[in-house]
Amino acid sequence: MRKLKTIELERKSLDQFKESPKIPLVVILDNLRSLHNVGSVFRTADAFRVKKLILVGITATPPNKEIQKTALGATQSVEWEYFKDIQDTINSLKKENICLISVEQTTNSQTLESLQLDKEKTYGLIFGNEVSGVNQWAIDQSDFCVEIPQEGTKHSLNVSVCSGIVLWEFYKQLR
Amino acid sequence: MRKLKTIELERKSLDQFKESPKIPLVVILDNLRSLHNVGSVFRTADAFRVKKLILVGITATPPNKEIQKTALGATQSVEWEYFKDIQDTINSLKKENICLISVEQTTNSQTLESLQLDKEKTYGLIFGNEVSGVNQWAIDQSDFCVEIPQEGTKHSLNVSVCSGIVLWEFYKQLR
Repeated sequence: MRKLKTIELERKSLDQFKESPKIPLVVILDNLRSLHNVGSVFRTADAFRVKKLILVGITATPPNKEIQKTALGATQSVEWEYFKDIQDTINSLKKENICLISVEQTTNSQTLESLQLDKEKTYGLIFGNEVSGVNQWAIDQSDFCVEIPQEGTKHSLNVSVCSGIVLWEFYKQLR
Repeated sequence: MRKLKTIELERKSLDQFKESPKIPLVVILDNLRSLHNVGSVFRTADAFRVKKLILVGITATPPNKEIQKTALGATQSVEWEYFKDIQDTINSLKKENICLISVEQTTNSQTLESLQLDKEKTYGLIFGNEVSGVNQWAIDQSDFCVEIPQEGTKHSLNVSVCSGIVLWEFYKQLR
């Protein structure tokens, strides 16, 4: 078992990535504080061919040196857009008939492993602030909520880890 | 859909966590440079009731203020041990009959979604340095390698995101 060289991984060039089909998934980052987390989600969105990232409110936007440290260039490949607030974001996505899912622990969230996605739909996954989570109004506007089952002592996972796990499950079903 | 309050999540106390059964999985972090990544893996290991974390080489150990920033207390719940080098780590784990899996892109890695785990076994997952990946000697000593399929422009995922995804798949099968 020999470790592959970077060239052997046959990763896409920027042009190849831009032209390649994406999975029908838009990822919304609402009021993320950490630039490290934003960069990390860009990198995950690149790996799983996500259609678009939407950065909302205080979530920082590229070009940004701190985002770049974890994104490692994925801000060039992944399409992104900025919205001033989550209300405008959701109103815009609803006009496009996007199925909105908040990633949050609520009174009736579905567990991640129970999700049955439909390849014909386009999904919008909303991730919230590191401390306060997804905004209650955004939850009210969502078609449903999803959560990752957790059995430890801590309230939640790190948001870049959480989004990595959720994007992986969506990628497996939508690719 | 109302967001749950922290108390409604019914998370385990430290004592309850210590007494709860763990999944048969040891996670090895070999020469991780980033304290942020180490803390983040502690938090994921807490959520998925991982048996033990093994911190190797230059990987920093608790107590450490920077690890704490992302671990948020999970260094208290998750059992951990330090080894000076990966050779000693692997020799020790082999004596315990642990099935060793390197998380690395190699000439014959299995894809994550194809894994069929055996609940009767104990697994050891090896994650390597952020830049150089898993050490080739450690790969040679492993039972097999696993990789997360990736289709973007970048070489790999962030190691805390990668470990989150892999631990999630192991948790689903081993819980």
